[in-house]
Amino acid sequence: MFFSFDGIDGVGKSTQIKLLVEWLGEQGHSAIACRDPGSTPLGERIREILLAHEDQVAIERRAEMLLYMAARAQLVEQVVRPALERGEIVVSDRFLLANVVYQSYAGGLDLEQVRSVGEVAIAVVRPDVVFLLDMPVEEADMRMARELDRMESQGREFRQRLREGFLAEARLAPGVIHVVDAARPIDEIQQEIRRVASATLRPK
Amino acid sequence: MFFSFDGIDGVGKSTQIKLLVEWLGEQGHSAIACRDPGSTPLGERIREILLAHEDQVAIERRAEMLLYMAARAQLVEQVVRPALERGEIVVSDRFLLANVVYQSYAGGLDLEQVRSVGEVAIAVVRPDVVFLLDMPVEEADMRMARELDRMESQGREFRQRLREGFLAEARLAPGVIHVVDAARPIDEIQQEIRRVASATLRPK
Repeated sequence: MFFSFDGIDGVGKSTQIKLLVEWLGEQGHSAIACRDPGSTPLGERIREILLAHEDQVAIERRAEMLLYMAARAQLVEQVVRPALERGEIVVSDRFLLANVVYQSYAGGLDLEQVRSVGEVAIAVVRPDVVFLLDMPVEEADMRMARELDRMESQGREFRQRLREGFLAEARLAPGVIHVVDAARPIDEIQQEIRRVASATLRPK
Repeated sequence: MFFSFDGIDGVGKSTQIKLLVEWLGEQGHSAIACRDPGSTPLGERIREILLAHEDQVAIERRAEMLLYMAARAQLVEQVVRPALERGEIVVSDRFLLANVVYQSYAGGLDLEQVRSVGEVAIAVVRPDVVFLLDMPVEEADMRMARELDRMESQGREFRQRLREGFLAEARLAPGVIHVVDAARPIDEIQQEIRRVASATLRPK
């Protein structure tokens, strides 16, 4: 079983992932958390390059998209697929959806091109459920106190396009992308996530 | 005008590129040399990762292919396209063909997948002529004296598949890929390259 969490920065993905993985463990499941890009030596090196401020290394939009895809291909082969084959539950902080939304909806790359490269990168490994944590951009902005990385320093208008892109993708895949109102208390959000995760894990 | 040079390692690409760029300058052309991956800050960082010995950072085949593509997208947008728009001649040490041959013919990735990702990466910027320097693998091996990088340390059988892949691609694109017998003296090879370059540069 493969869960991913996505949404704009500041919506509380890390907190919810941590709580979900802990709870899955308490329920007797073997669950691992990973992040995309990252969670492999190659992926972390790519992540460093991608999240460096733009004045360090300027990155063209298509190159950026392909770097995310490279990190993801590595993550799939070295972490996600092996864990799934061992029967474990994988919970990823972001996955392909983020790439589609950031580089296409908000970044202007051709949607079908990003999707087709994405298919090559993930090689049929895709989340069973994507938890899309959603809240107004203004509220997410207020919650972000830590130093802004490159993505987070992009403007309000860009982040608005991101939010709309995520929601547009959710409308296209209602069976997979589960939109969670993330402007509520942490516990309430986590309860909803656990309900969906339980229903997905239950033998059919 | 955009020329690229390709072929297995050890066939003398660097020497021929240097001679061609010098000669183009003498002929009054403005010509620049670049290498793929490389020739941009991002590309050189990716190149370091790719050429590191495998025991440093293991790289999955699809991730490797996508990293080459990312470096190439950056090269196209920051170096090749701007130079072509200024009316300059670009001479690249390797380009998309190498990726197709190394990762697909020799590396086992699906050929159509590599081609389709390649189309996204290059965004319609492709060489007018690809000089494919060809010689028997045994002879190229003998010529390589410098320390072997990751690619070069791959076995004889792999390099044989590479050579065959390059020649197969040349048969598919005879109007673009010009096969040069590279087992001859340097001057003779360069004369042939200059003849082809001249014919391509001549106003039609």
